Amino acid sequence: MSHPVDSAVSAVRTYIEQHRAAFLDDLAGWLRIPSVSAQPDHAPDVRRSADWLAAKLKETGFPVTEVWQTPGAPAVYAEWPADDPGAPTVLVYGHHDVQPAAVEDGWDSDPFEPVVRENRLYARGAADDKGQVFFHTLGVRAHLAATGRTAPAVTLKLLIEGEEESSSPNFRALVEEHTERLAADAVIVSDTGMWSADTPTVCTGMRGLAECEIRLFGPDQDIHSGSFGGAVPNPATAVARLVAALHDEHARVAVPGFYDGIVELTDRERELFAELPFDEDQWLRTARSHAPHGEAGHTTLERVWARPTAEVNGIGGGYQGPGSKTIIPSSAFVKLSFRLVAGQDPDHVEKAVRAWAAEQLPAGIRSEIAFSPATRPCLTPLDHPALQSVVRAMGRAFEQPVRFTREGGSGPAADLQEVLGAPVLFLGISVPSDGWHAPNEKVELDLLLKGVETSAYLWGDLADTWHAP
Amino acid sequence: MSHPVDSAVSAVRTYIEQHRAAFLDDLAGWLRIPSVSAQPDHAPDVRRSADWLAAKLKETGFPVTEVWQTPGAPAVYAEWPADDPGAPTVLVYGHHDVQPAAVEDGWDSDPFEPVVRENRLYARGAADDKGQVFFHTLGVRAHLAATGRTAPAVTLKLLIEGEEESSSPNFRALVEEHTERLAADAVIVSDTGMWSADTPTVCTGMRGLAECEIRLFGPDQDIHSGSFGGAVPNPATAVARLVAALHDEHARVAVPGFYDGIVELTDRERELFAELPFDEDQWLRTARSHAPHGEAGHTTLERVWARPTAEVNGIGGGYQGPGSKTIIPSSAFVKLSFRLVAGQDPDHVEKAVRAWAAEQLPAGIRSEIAFSPATRPCLTPLDHPALQSVVRAMGRAFEQPVRFTREGGSGPAADLQEVLGAPVLFLGISVPSDGWHAPNEKVELDLLLKGVETSAYLWGDLADTWHAP
Repeated sequence: MSHPVDSAVSAVRTYIEQHRAAFLDDLAGWLRIPSVSAQPDHAPDVRRSADWLAAKLKETGFPVTEVWQTPGAPAVYAEWPADDPGAPTVLVYGHHDVQPAAVEDGWDSDPFEPVVRENRLYARGAADDKGQVFFHTLGVRAHLAATGRTAPAVTLKLLIEGEEESSSPNFRALVEEHTERLAADAVIVSDTGMWSADTPTVCTGMRGLAECEIRLFGPDQDIHSGSFGGAVPNPATAVARLVAALHDEHARVAVPGFYDGIVELTDRERELFAELPFDEDQWLRTARSHAPHGEAGHTTLERVWARPTAEVNGIGGGYQGPGSKTIIPSSAFVKLSFRLVAGQDPDHVEKAVRAWAAEQLPAGIRSEIAFSPATRPCLTPLDHPALQSVVRAMGRAFEQPVRFTREGGSGPAADLQEVLGAPVLFLGISVPSDGWHAPNEKVELDLLLKGVETSAYLWGDLADTWHAP
Repeated sequence: MSHPVDSAVSAVRTYIEQHRAAFLDDLAGWLRIPSVSAQPDHAPDVRRSADWLAAKLKETGFPVTEVWQTPGAPAVYAEWPADDPGAPTVLVYGHHDVQPAAVEDGWDSDPFEPVVRENRLYARGAADDKGQVFFHTLGVRAHLAATGRTAPAVTLKLLIEGEEESSSPNFRALVEEHTERLAADAVIVSDTGMWSADTPTVCTGMRGLAECEIRLFGPDQDIHSGSFGGAVPNPATAVARLVAALHDEHARVAVPGFYDGIVELTDRERELFAELPFDEDQWLRTARSHAPHGEAGHTTLERVWARPTAEVNGIGGGYQGPGSKTIIPSSAFVKLSFRLVAGQDPDHVEKAVRAWAAEQLPAGIRSEIAFSPATRPCLTPLDHPALQSVVRAMGRAFEQPVRFTREGGSGPAADLQEVLGAPVLFLGISVPSDGWHAPNEKVELDLLLKGVETSAYLWGDLADTWHAP
């Protein structure tokens, strides 16, 4: 199954080698911008990140580069038409905002001062998602250099949003506003990963995401737990009981109606999952966790790729400082996220959670529940011809057969699929140990450059083999 | 039942009226010292508070005033021997440390800048406990002035500790170290309250307190809830399930062995409780709460005075900031406090909680449980002659019959009872609306001065009527 190193491959690799240093320097410059969309005080940085990227894409050669304002953080749009007006149009999706990060969370170095250690680039956003957006810039240059073209073989559009780590609240409206300009035959999402450095894979689906914050209110102010304890409802106890009621004894989500409509895995899909070289001990090490735990009757891969979840992302209430404070707190909160799979409707899930929560609360406890805009789940047909192009381009770069996975995380890919009417493909080179959303996020430099190479092969393969509808 | 205003009463009241302004100025000076024992950065303030009080007691006339160092915060000791060597010796207990307080918790004014509004003095510590310690200073002066004595009718000792709000970790050792100097025929605890401004009462018992912090550890670092969610144990979920398991469906504490040995209320005690002019709606307003909630089969007064509890004082884990962060947190904690009633052994409760917690945790979750030193519960015999003196002194000051209550809060009174072998009496003038441990803590100035007056009558009554064993 190895692919011979033909002259096109050689030309691509030579070009990448020649430009590798400048490419990494440029990426480091971008990673230094702390574009944390969830934290309002970083809003100027998110704008700076968008401006930086637009300028870089202009320098790359995109004739059209624009920063698109939204009610939140700006997105970057770029377009490079193919010479051949009959060529397919491909829209690349990624994001330039990043998760919050602070040295005191456990980073070995400043999360916004990129550093290379052992051929890995450490920085917040190295893998999620700046590195994976950025490999397309050198990829398209290598594509042009290796083929002698002055424009890519497909019409290439980029839409790099600035609110993905904040659940993309304005993304759908942005896509709807610019539907005509974004029109594409396929969407390539570069915001996922692959199985491992040794096993290149293409992802065929992502889970969706519904998020909420539930605040419970008890006494109008903190009260003395001696004077009043035992005789009034405690909102911290109530929030704990609410969370405890989220799952039944089989670790299934116990919210009535939560599983309504979900597309269950077929036996064939379960077989494909089971055929992957999965080592649960190794996976647990990557998860930095000490035991598997989840829905009864499903394997770990099924649980993270194809089963919906309810997870606590944050819980709080009452005294947080050192020592003790004998109070009944006036309020408590929990931040919950629900991962959704194909067939689940986020609106239905929200209604179900609201109805369930209302029934859990004791008298005297008031609740406020705020849902963020949801991200829908999506699945790509395995036999789609554009997906086959991605598999071939990745196979050439990695010189290995490419297998299929799904992604447990979530992205607004489903909005693109729905609004643009285009199939969504996933091209990512991140590996599970990259530490997305965690301290010491990194990207493997060898894989980053394989991403560049895959991008360089993909556009020609698509133009040659696929005649979009 | 009204008491005629005799000449002694008249003399006491005149003296108090003449010295009221200076007394309140002095108290305000003390309240400006933020002696928060739970917060290490306030340790110098706690020391300053002790020095301030020792100097003030010297100025009051106590021939012996000392600051007693401990491994934690210092206590203040003062002694004023009676002229008559056969007079009883009374030890007054209080504390000069206060709960944490910050304007952003909801205070209408700086908690450490005392202010009088509508005849109430607002400041952290106004009622708990600086105000109630301080009324004895003017009380003993009024006693001397009204009786023409140069020394009090009883040998008066004061022990004002500096760690009561941190569970008095060094108090028992301090009392044991100074047992001979602290020797007393009775202990007067001025760190409780009375029923209401209209219904003066004497408290006959306090609940004890066992406190712990339970930390649960899951992944070694925060991990992505998309990549790993649904397949590993989440410590925030686990801490919630632990808290939810604390109580059964009847709001009884579900920790096996928790109720072992408790002295149940007699029918007569339940009758005495039921005879108090208790208005549940009014009580709920004082509790700033919106419904009663507690152990099935007990009234609200029984729940707060005579039943043990398990309350969450603080819970936390995962993302606490604005917006969302899709992580599974690496750890979560809960700060729990258990109020104990007569017959419960804190060591037994600790063992029971540890054994119970260990059984609740899923595989892959590790726990650390730290208990603070406990405070034992205590009860005073209703027919004790010194208690009758307190009732008479209070009745003279308030010109009303005095009834009996218990106190839901906790104090190290039981240690004094146990180590010194002396009965513990409670003399407090705080009312439930004073906001102990809450924002806008205050003391009613009229009641504070009734406290001064009660103190002024008490020493002579004790000397006249009680011949200590």
